[in-house]
Amino acid sequence: MREQFEVRELDAGGRIGELSIPRAGVTVETPALLPVINPNLDTLSPRRLAEEFGAEILITNSYIIHQTDGVREDALEDGLHELYEFPGAIMTDSGSFQLAEYGEIEVTTEEILAFQHAIGSDIGTPVDIPTPPGVSRDRAETDLETTQRRLERAEAIDTGEMLVTAPIQGSTYPDLREAAGRHANATSLDVFPVGAVVPLLNEYRYAEVVEIVAAAKRGLGADAPVHLFGAGHPMMFALGVALGCDLFDSAAYALYARDDRYLTVRGTRHLDALEYLPCSCPICTKYTPNEIRELPDDEREEVLAAHNLHVTFAEMARIKQAIRAGNLLELVDERARSHPAMLDGYRTLLDHAAYLERSDPVSKGSFFYTSHESARRPEVLRHHQRLERLTVPDSLLLTDGDAPASYDAENCWRVEPPFGPFPRALSKSYPLTAEVPDRTDDAALTAAVDGIETLCEAHPDTSVTFAHHGWPAHVLEGVPEGVSLVDLGKN
Amino acid sequence: MREQFEVRELDAGGRIGELSIPRAGVTVETPALLPVINPNLDTLSPRRLAEEFGAEILITNSYIIHQTDGVREDALEDGLHELYEFPGAIMTDSGSFQLAEYGEIEVTTEEILAFQHAIGSDIGTPVDIPTPPGVSRDRAETDLETTQRRLERAEAIDTGEMLVTAPIQGSTYPDLREAAGRHANATSLDVFPVGAVVPLLNEYRYAEVVEIVAAAKRGLGADAPVHLFGAGHPMMFALGVALGCDLFDSAAYALYARDDRYLTVRGTRHLDALEYLPCSCPICTKYTPNEIRELPDDEREEVLAAHNLHVTFAEMARIKQAIRAGNLLELVDERARSHPAMLDGYRTLLDHAAYLERSDPVSKGSFFYTSHESARRPEVLRHHQRLERLTVPDSLLLTDGDAPASYDAENCWRVEPPFGPFPRALSKSYPLTAEVPDRTDDAALTAAVDGIETLCEAHPDTSVTFAHHGWPAHVLEGVPEGVSLVDLGKN
Repeated sequence: MREQFEVRELDAGGRIGELSIPRAGVTVETPALLPVINPNLDTLSPRRLAEEFGAEILITNSYIIHQTDGVREDALEDGLHELYEFPGAIMTDSGSFQLAEYGEIEVTTEEILAFQHAIGSDIGTPVDIPTPPGVSRDRAETDLETTQRRLERAEAIDTGEMLVTAPIQGSTYPDLREAAGRHANATSLDVFPVGAVVPLLNEYRYAEVVEIVAAAKRGLGADAPVHLFGAGHPMMFALGVALGCDLFDSAAYALYARDDRYLTVRGTRHLDALEYLPCSCPICTKYTPNEIRELPDDEREEVLAAHNLHVTFAEMARIKQAIRAGNLLELVDERARSHPAMLDGYRTLLDHAAYLERSDPVSKGSFFYTSHESARRPEVLRHHQRLERLTVPDSLLLTDGDAPASYDAENCWRVEPPFGPFPRALSKSYPLTAEVPDRTDDAALTAAVDGIETLCEAHPDTSVTFAHHGWPAHVLEGVPEGVSLVDLGKN
Repeated sequence: MREQFEVRELDAGGRIGELSIPRAGVTVETPALLPVINPNLDTLSPRRLAEEFGAEILITNSYIIHQTDGVREDALEDGLHELYEFPGAIMTDSGSFQLAEYGEIEVTTEEILAFQHAIGSDIGTPVDIPTPPGVSRDRAETDLETTQRRLERAEAIDTGEMLVTAPIQGSTYPDLREAAGRHANATSLDVFPVGAVVPLLNEYRYAEVVEIVAAAKRGLGADAPVHLFGAGHPMMFALGVALGCDLFDSAAYALYARDDRYLTVRGTRHLDALEYLPCSCPICTKYTPNEIRELPDDEREEVLAAHNLHVTFAEMARIKQAIRAGNLLELVDERARSHPAMLDGYRTLLDHAAYLERSDPVSKGSFFYTSHESARRPEVLRHHQRLERLTVPDSLLLTDGDAPASYDAENCWRVEPPFGPFPRALSKSYPLTAEVPDRTDDAALTAAVDGIETLCEAHPDTSVTFAHHGWPAHVLEGVPEGVSLVDLGKN
C-alpha cells in the first residue's frame, strides 16, 4: 500500500480516500477538486477559495511562474503559500500543457522539479509529453518512452517532503495507457495524473476518455491516487469518479466565466441564453440574469466564476454523499442524460462492469433500476457469477411470480429482472432487494435471461422449467434449449 | 380563451404562462410554486418568502383560519395581505383536505367562499370532495356529482374580483377525471386544481398520477391553468410541468424540515444520513451537516426549511429555463432516473406522446437522444406522421450511411435512429439535427424501423430497399415484407 493514500469507502470504481500531503501538513479527502490558479490573473483569490468554497487544495502552474519576471522572484522569496495566502495544499504543474500547446518549453524535468520545490509546492510534476489523441502508434510509443525516462529521472531526484506526480500518457491507445499505468505504478512516485485527455473532453469524446482511464487504472492498481488532469466540468465528475479518479482540477470555472459561460451539471449555458438562473447558489439567489449581464466585465466574470465554482464543489459533495450512500451509479445514470455523448461514456463505463464489480461493496443501501443501462450494472454481473456457485435441486421451476402451492420453496426459484433466478431465501439480501419499475423493459428481461443461461450452464444436469408472464419471443431466444418454457399469459 | 391566463411558450405539454390575479393586482408567471403557509405556524415568514425566495404567490388554509379563534378575527379585521405582510397573491384552500382527513367539516361552499372573500383571498376554493384512490366506481361517481354540484353553486356566487378554483376529482378513474375536467372547463370558474393526488404521491405512484393528470387535461383543454394540488416535491415538478401543470404548492418544504428531511431533486434524504450537503444553496454553503444537526430544534427546522425551499424554487427556475430552451423533455428524462417509480411515471408520460405532440413546437433548439425512452418522444412520432405526407419516388433506397455515388439524392433517403427515413434535404431541419449517441440502442433502431413501416404503408406503390450496417434481426422483423433488405456489415 502507498502510505500517503488510504481508501475509506468504495462504490463501483469510485472511492472516498485520504491523501496525506506531508509538506503541506494536511490530509485532503478525495475525490477532491483543485481549482486552478493562474499566477497572472486573480479571478477569485485563493484565500476566498479556501474560506468561501472550502477548497482544501489548489493547483497552479510553476512554469508560468518560472517564466514571469517579478512573479518568479516573489514566489522564490515568499513561497506559494504566503504569496497566495492559502492554508491548504498547493500542487504545481510543470509546463507540459505549454509544451503541448506551443511545441517547446525552456526547462527540464530536473530544473522544474527543483524550482517547484524551491517555491514551496506540495505536489510537483515532471515535464511529461502530453501526446494528443489519434496520433500514430509510433509517435505515441516514442513519446511515452520519453515520458517514462523522465519519470525515472524524477524518481531519482531528492524532492524532500514534496510529493511528485507520475503522469500517464499513451494517446488513445488503451494498451499503451495500461502499460504506462503499470510503469508509473512501479516507480516510487506518488500521484498519477491521466494526461492529455483535454482534447477529448473538449470534443465531448467521453467514451474514449472512459477507455483511456479504465486502461490506466488497470495498469495502476487500486491503491494509486489518480488525477484526471484537466477535467473540470462538473457534468462528468460522477462518471470520472465511478471509474476510479480521485483528483480533478478546474480551470473551467474561471475560463468559462471569462466567456460568459455558466456551468451546470447538465452542461454549459451561455449567459445570454439564460432567462432564469437554474441554480440555488448564493450568486443565483442574489442576482437575476439581467443584473449579471449588466455588471461591469470584471465583476461579471467574478460573479460567474463564483457560480461556476459553487456548482462544481456542490457536485463533488453530491458524489461523495452518493458513495457513502452506495448510490454512485444512480447518480452516473442521471448525469448520463445530460448529453448523448455522456450516454456514450456511461455505456462504455458499463463495458467495464467486471472491473467495477471488483471494488463494489457486497451490500449497499439499495439498488435502483432507473434505465435500460441499469441492467448492465456490476451488481447484476455479480449475481450471475454467484449463480454458478449456488446449489441447485435436480429439478427446478423458475417463475417471475409466486411459487405454485404444489412446490417447495427450494424447488421453485424466483426470476426477477434484471437479476434473473435466485432461491427465495435470498430475496431479502442485496441486490435482490432492488427497487425496480413496474414497467420493466427488454434490457432487464434480457439480463434475467442471461442469468437463466448462466445457471443452466453451471448446472447442466438440472432439469429447468421457466414459467413466465408473456415475456417477448426475442428475449426468450436467449433461454438455453433444454429449458421448458411455460407462458402463463400477461400478468 | 380564458382572459386571466395566457400561454407564452410551449415545450411538450409544458408551458410558460401568465396568470393575472386581479384582486391582488399582480400577474404571476407559471409554472409557479406556491409555498403553503400554516396559519398557526410560521416556519419561514411570508415576508421572507417574498424577499429571500422571490415567492410571487402563496397558499394558506381558510378553514383553519375560520376555525381558530383569534386568527379568524385578525384575518377578518386586517385581511390576509396585511396579516402576512405579503406583497404577492394569496390563494386559499377551503377545508377539503380536512374533510378527507377527518370525514367532516363545519362549513358549506357558500360559507367558506364568503369567508375567503372577507379575509381578502385572491383565489378562493369551494368545498370539493377529495375522493381517495382505488375506491369503488360508484363512490367515485357519487362524490364527483357532489363536487360538480358545489362547483355550479360556487359559479353562482358573487365573489367580486376573487378568482375561484374548480377542483377536478374522480379518484383513479381516468374517464371520470376527463369528464370532471370537461365539466369544470364549462363553468365560469378560473383555476383548475387536480385534487386528491397526495395519497398517490406519498406512495410514489407516479404512473397513476400521470394517467389522472393526462385525463383531466384532455377534459380541460389547453387554455385552462392547472394546479397539481399537493405536489410539492421538486423531484417530480418537471414531469408535472411536461404534462401541462402550471401551479404547484409546497407544504413539503416545511413539513419535511420538521422531520429532519432534506429535499433534493433526486429524492429525500434524512439529515442523519448526510455526511455532506449535496447542494450549493446559501444554507448548504454556510453550514456543515454536523453544524445543522447540532442546532436547536426550531433553528434546525428553519434552516432545513430554507434549504428545502431553495431547492424547490431552483428546480422551478430550471424547468422554466428548459421550456425556453426547448429541452424540457431532456430534463424530465434526467429526473426519471431519481427513482424507479419516477421512471414508471416517465414511461407513462410517453404513452401520451400524441397528446404532447399537439402542443410541442415544430422547431426547438436541439433534440438530445439521452435514453431508450427518447425513442418514444413526441418529436419522433411527429416525424413518422410527416412521412405519410412526403412525396416519394417510385423506387427508393434507404440507407443508414451515405448515399452510393450511383444514386441521386432524391432516390436515396437517409435512415437515422430514432427517426427513421427522411430525404437528405431535410437533414438540417428539426428534429433531424438531433444529437444522438455513437452507441445506439434497440429502442432507437426499432423506432427507425417503425418509421420505415409508416413510410411503406403510406406509399404502397413505392419499391423500397433498406441497406443497413448490421442491424439486429429482431429489430428488422418490423420492416414490411415488400422491402428488400441489404446488410452492409458492421460499420
